[in-house]
Amino acid sequence: MLKPPLITLLTDFGLADHYVAAMKGVVLGICPEARLVDISHEVRPFAVAEAAFTLGQAYPCFPAGTTHLVVVDPGVGSARRPLLVEADGHRFIAPDNGILTWPMDRDPGHSAREITAASFFRQPVSGTFHGRDIFAPVAARLASGIPVAEFGEIVGSAVRLDFAPATRDEVGVWQGRILYVDRFGNLVTNIRASDAPQIAEKRFKMVFGTTETSWYHPSYASANHESIFVIEGSSGFLEVSINQGDAARVAGVAAGAAITLRLT
Amino acid sequence: MLKPPLITLLTDFGLADHYVAAMKGVVLGICPEARLVDISHEVRPFAVAEAAFTLGQAYPCFPAGTTHLVVVDPGVGSARRPLLVEADGHRFIAPDNGILTWPMDRDPGHSAREITAASFFRQPVSGTFHGRDIFAPVAARLASGIPVAEFGEIVGSAVRLDFAPATRDEVGVWQGRILYVDRFGNLVTNIRASDAPQIAEKRFKMVFGTTETSWYHPSYASANHESIFVIEGSSGFLEVSINQGDAARVAGVAAGAAITLRLT
Amino acid sequence: MLKPPLITLLTDFGLADHYVAAMKGVVLGICPEARLVDISHEVRPFAVAEAAFTLGQAYPCFPAGTTHLVVVDPGVGSARRPLLVEADGHRFIAPDNGILTWPMDRDPGHSAREITAASFFRQPVSGTFHGRDIFAPVAARLASGIPVAEFGEIVGSAVRLDFAPATRDEVGVWQGRILYVDRFGNLVTNIRASDAPQIAEKRFKMVFGTTETSWYHPSYASANHESIFVIEGSSGFLEVSINQGDAARVAGVAAGAAITLRLT
Repeated sequence: MLKPPLITLLTDFGLADHYVAAMKGVVLGICPEARLVDISHEVRPFAVAEAAFTLGQAYPCFPAGTTHLVVVDPGVGSARRPLLVEADGHRFIAPDNGILTWPMDRDPGHSAREITAASFFRQPVSGTFHGRDIFAPVAARLASGIPVAEFGEIVGSAVRLDFAPATRDEVGVWQGRILYVDRFGNLVTNIRASDAPQIAEKRFKMVFGTTETSWYHPSYASANHESIFVIEGSSGFLEVSINQGDAARVAGVAAGAAITLRLT
Repeated sequence: MLKPPLITLLTDFGLADHYVAAMKGVVLGICPEARLVDISHEVRPFAVAEAAFTLGQAYPCFPAGTTHLVVVDPGVGSARRPLLVEADGHRFIAPDNGILTWPMDRDPGHSAREITAASFFRQPVSGTFHGRDIFAPVAARLASGIPVAEFGEIVGSAVRLDFAPATRDEVGVWQGRILYVDRFGNLVTNIRASDAPQIAEKRFKMVFGTTETSWYHPSYASANHESIFVIEGSSGFLEVSINQGDAARVAGVAAGAAITLRLT
Repeated sequence: MLKPPLITLLTDFGLADHYVAAMKGVVLGICPEARLVDISHEVRPFAVAEAAFTLGQAYPCFPAGTTHLVVVDPGVGSARRPLLVEADGHRFIAPDNGILTWPMDRDPGHSAREITAASFFRQPVSGTFHGRDIFAPVAARLASGIPVAEFGEIVGSAVRLDFAPATRDEVGVWQGRILYVDRFGNLVTNIRASDAPQIAEKRFKMVFGTTETSWYHPSYASANHESIFVIEGSSGFLEVSINQGDAARVAGVAAGAAITLRLT
């Protein structure tokens, strides 16, 4: 357990309304010494896969023992389970909707518990805001040192989304897709840079939408401001970028779009 | 007094400019151990009533003894008074423009002081940024343990906005309005769910703008994605929602719009 | 050195993606007791001058000894140097692109070091995210108490932008420009209010774009809602404003636009 406890927050609540503050107030009422760090609250509403990617990128940068409070929860008030997952040295409190796919995929030895200890909830529990009433108080108590077993029993399986890496056929053609588009318009693919070292030698053609490129650059700044090129992103995946431009807008593609990579 | 001191911030300054950071820097220069939590800085510019609602929803989630620094201040530099209000176990530093209506309405035993102790201000006091020059240093000193009486005298009355609950006539028809529209497009009404238990039995018709509904759902997820329905919101008020949709956009109504509720 | 260490963050990463959280996670893994305060992450992408102004306004509000982690870095991965600057009692970690112009201009005795101590970096260092891999771990180690000399050697000069104040000709006409436009549409000029005391006596005409004004107000609230007027801003510069209106939109001017001020 970390001292002082460190809790991150990731939601689709936005920053205008009171929802994030309500969760933080509940946490600090229970665990006054907790350190709170926002991962993001600007996930598009209900965009579970987008939040899952964001969590997968952010959590490994935090120290082991961090508690991650993750609430993108279109099923709030339904029978979907609240989960406490231990994976990769971190702890996660989230609804069981696939949002924890990345740490679960990375750590085959993870455990997932259904949170059932209602005595840890804020009462009365509303039908619309489990972030405030269930997830926040549970995260605060977990970070305070209450053992995981007190929150509920281990469950056999939890929902996972398909973040399968790109596939490569026998003639060396990769079929993949865009995992994420960031603020700058960079297109993050699901092809690991370490799986395609030929990229750096510029022996490839990547196709997405109606656009294609055979350019590679090791940094944004080594490209001119017009070219659309492939780069090894900070995520470890190949990304498509324009130096100080917006590749997503220029190429007209969004998250989920198919890409093809031919090595030549 | 809380140890460590806990200070929340609520403004209409947005997150792009340096204004919020300037206030935080001033606070931490005076009270280095303060914990700072943002409630919101995305209140629409000058929208005092919107900020008042947001504060009213957020502050009760924080522990008693929290200091709330609230600066939506279209009257900055004029004769409007800076206030220190104690209400509902919390302390509030804000301009006297109605932004503290919710805690004052909830706690008839509240006290309000005009902040006059200029020795606590950051000098020179600008004519345009009392958040930095008056409210932040006062909040920091209050949170540090300086007694409230040292900041100024109790005043007879403070500005309050009209957040009167909806009214019900003798034949059971409620006349109310939309208090707030959140990021998801949920319409928060001023009818307390506990005042209209017939809703859960679906014996009602609610009308807003040119739209009406007789649907009720206990959770978002129990509705389909097309219906516009009434739900008990996490605020304790009835809300109008669409499951994973935007009720405000579909109904074409905004905060302030009139609603009618007929029980049948 | 501050105890606990205080680190601010200023980037153009936005608040939706995981980039800011990645930096914070890296900092807290190295320096768990660090206090983190956001200055802004909503700087327009690659807008170094805008970030420089924001930093120049915000940092003096923080206590001496604060470490400022500043990453607007269009040259990431190129030969541009990472810098550690000591100026005005504060410490700054940033790329050498002019973003530290304000503290360097204010403190002629500042020192600038090129950060070369790769053992302090997060390995492997990516080509696209030095915020996470170089600037964050260096800021964390600096705030932890590692002496500045261990990060690299002093360099002869660092990049500076031109934030020269407005100039005044022999007949009393000032030629200046708009430094910044804030959320409210206030136009911050580069004319210091203390250099033009005649403004408060309304003996002037200010021209910007196709608009001109001879109005002065000591506070927003003393103006009506239609007039465009000059005011002494909280920055110490003259600003152009409309009471509860958007002067930038009404005047149709943006940051960088020329202004002329005639004293009469």
